[in-house]
Amino acid sequence: MEYRRVKDQESCDDLSQKDIENLSGRSLSSANAAATAGGLSSAVGAKGNYSWKLKSVVTLALTLLTSSQAILIVWSKRAGKYEYSVTTANFSVEALKCLLSLATLFRTWNRHGVTDDNRLTTSVDEVSVYPIPAVLYMVKNLLQYYIFAYVDAPAYQILKNLNIISTGVLYRIILKKKLSEIQWAAFVLLCAGCTTAQLNPSSDHVLQTPIEGWMMAIVMALLSGFAGVYTEAIIKKRPSRNINVQNFWLYIFGVIFNLVAICVQDYDAVMNKGFFHGYSFITVLMILNHALSGIAVSMVMKYADNIVKVYSTSVAMLLTAVVSVFLFRFHLSLAFFLGSTVVSVSVYLHSVGKPQPQK
Amino acid sequence: MEYRRVKDQESCDDLSQKDIENLSGRSLSSANAAATAGGLSSAVGAKGNYSWKLKSVVTLALTLLTSSQAILIVWSKRAGKYEYSVTTANFSVEALKCLLSLATLFRTWNRHGVTDDNRLTTSVDEVSVYPIPAVLYMVKNLLQYYIFAYVDAPAYQILKNLNIISTGVLYRIILKKKLSEIQWAAFVLLCAGCTTAQLNPSSDHVLQTPIEGWMMAIVMALLSGFAGVYTEAIIKKRPSRNINVQNFWLYIFGVIFNLVAICVQDYDAVMNKGFFHGYSFITVLMILNHALSGIAVSMVMKYADNIVKVYSTSVAMLLTAVVSVFLFRFHLSLAFFLGSTVVSVSVYLHSVGKPQPQK
Repeated sequence: MEYRRVKDQESCDDLSQKDIENLSGRSLSSANAAATAGGLSSAVGAKGNYSWKLKSVVTLALTLLTSSQAILIVWSKRAGKYEYSVTTANFSVEALKCLLSLATLFRTWNRHGVTDDNRLTTSVDEVSVYPIPAVLYMVKNLLQYYIFAYVDAPAYQILKNLNIISTGVLYRIILKKKLSEIQWAAFVLLCAGCTTAQLNPSSDHVLQTPIEGWMMAIVMALLSGFAGVYTEAIIKKRPSRNINVQNFWLYIFGVIFNLVAICVQDYDAVMNKGFFHGYSFITVLMILNHALSGIAVSMVMKYADNIVKVYSTSVAMLLTAVVSVFLFRFHLSLAFFLGSTVVSVSVYLHSVGKPQPQK
Repeated sequence: MEYRRVKDQESCDDLSQKDIENLSGRSLSSANAAATAGGLSSAVGAKGNYSWKLKSVVTLALTLLTSSQAILIVWSKRAGKYEYSVTTANFSVEALKCLLSLATLFRTWNRHGVTDDNRLTTSVDEVSVYPIPAVLYMVKNLLQYYIFAYVDAPAYQILKNLNIISTGVLYRIILKKKLSEIQWAAFVLLCAGCTTAQLNPSSDHVLQTPIEGWMMAIVMALLSGFAGVYTEAIIKKRPSRNINVQNFWLYIFGVIFNLVAICVQDYDAVMNKGFFHGYSFITVLMILNHALSGIAVSMVMKYADNIVKVYSTSVAMLLTAVVSVFLFRFHLSLAFFLGSTVVSVSVYLHSVGKPQPQK
């Protein structure tokens, strides 16, 4: 209950995952990968064991970063309300991701020289698609203000699990990748399990959602799913292209969009009190976490896929709840245990249900 | 909520499934199968399409009978408290099952003559195992009085879903039948899904169950699971033996045990007010339903297995809830929808996950 309340108010990892998107204007990134990406990009071709390890590392990173995110949000709220302007934080996250991408690129250029795959300059043809996910997320974020006319925040939390289904469906349709029947079943279970884990005594409320609320929730889920799948398509279209170059072009539009947002929303506050007014240690930690999570999402898109991303953030939600028991003395509900069981079985089924001819 | 309340008070189909067991002292039967069993027993050998049809028919019968049971219980309670003595009702159920088995047997003898497989006389070796399930259920029913010292009725409802797991485990261990990995996953999901569908705002209570309560719940689940699996073993040990003979020997011990129960518990009431005192039309319907459900359980044991029985009664629970929406204007909760989704996926996975080399 206690946990639920906090989760609903302060946002669980699923929320915080969306928070990244909100903060970033988009859900993609990569660059502090600085530490590893220099070597990573050259390894794209290396299949088999190495590629599996890479996939595991980026997935684990995303899971840990996402789950620590929700905890940071709870901490920062405990310390009081946000004193800083959210737009400058969003901008900082995007700028940090850009800088990290560039830093890694410089290292790669120094080590391996400038090649066709890692040079920053690009064609209009290549770069023209990069702003699209950012625009999609912006439309989704705008809709978010309107949906609250029809549903309350806890019901919205529940409805957001539709993202899982929309991502799966769009992944199949747009990327034309096949999931086996068992993997589809696992995906339905993931959605049901996450929702079950988030159930609280007032959840039944969501069944009274008017048709307008359902429609908007579905449209938002489709926009969010489409943005994710589209990003994967952009990144995977050029498999040999250095991920840091791709990230730079993804993030630079985030920087631009957020600069516009600062001018429109917080121009006076920034001019009078300074750009970094109200930043605390926790604020800096959160910006760092959001930047790294964003980069991890990009890495997962490059080396794994949207399905892995959805599983990763879902498991992160469960991890956050368990860690919160120790950190904040939250109580876990029976529904949480049941939901976690279903999510765990779903993860298992997804892995054993691979669409290879021989299991 | 409304539905939940009624379910907890009046027992859902899972409860009513146990009710059969309580009423019968055991969960097995067969005889109104009168209508069909004459032909059925001769078809045991006929594999393939016919055997699949037979399996489907008995499973469907069990599902429908079990779900109508819970509805009858709600109806009978609406009409007031039980006026009759429960022991005489139990006895009537057992006696009716015996009579139906005998009636079908007579028909078979008239049509096909008396053979080794359908003669009623039997060896001590064959009949000696038949009272065992009845004894197991009796021990379980005795324990039931003690467990309420540690858990309340709604928590007991939740804990009873452990039966699903115990049946699966004992089915594997005792009958040495293999479930595929996916079918095991499906079984865990069935348990989680049924529990989720039964969640209500006070369910978290079950997490405070003391260790003694857990131990007793586990022992009861094991006893119930063992009785079910043992019955299947008895019935399947002689595949060519007529099911009505097998049922007769199963039920006759139920008749005897319940006769003892009447003498111990309700001797005075029966002597003063008569055997059938307080019986109403609904009482008769319930006895008929329990007898037919018992027979359907036996049929499922003979032509399918315990796993099918568990699925059948679980789906019946969901059916009852849905039918109750129309009959009693119950409201279904979000947890019910989520649980139903998980149970449906579980049924699907059980069927696609068959442990054949080629799916």
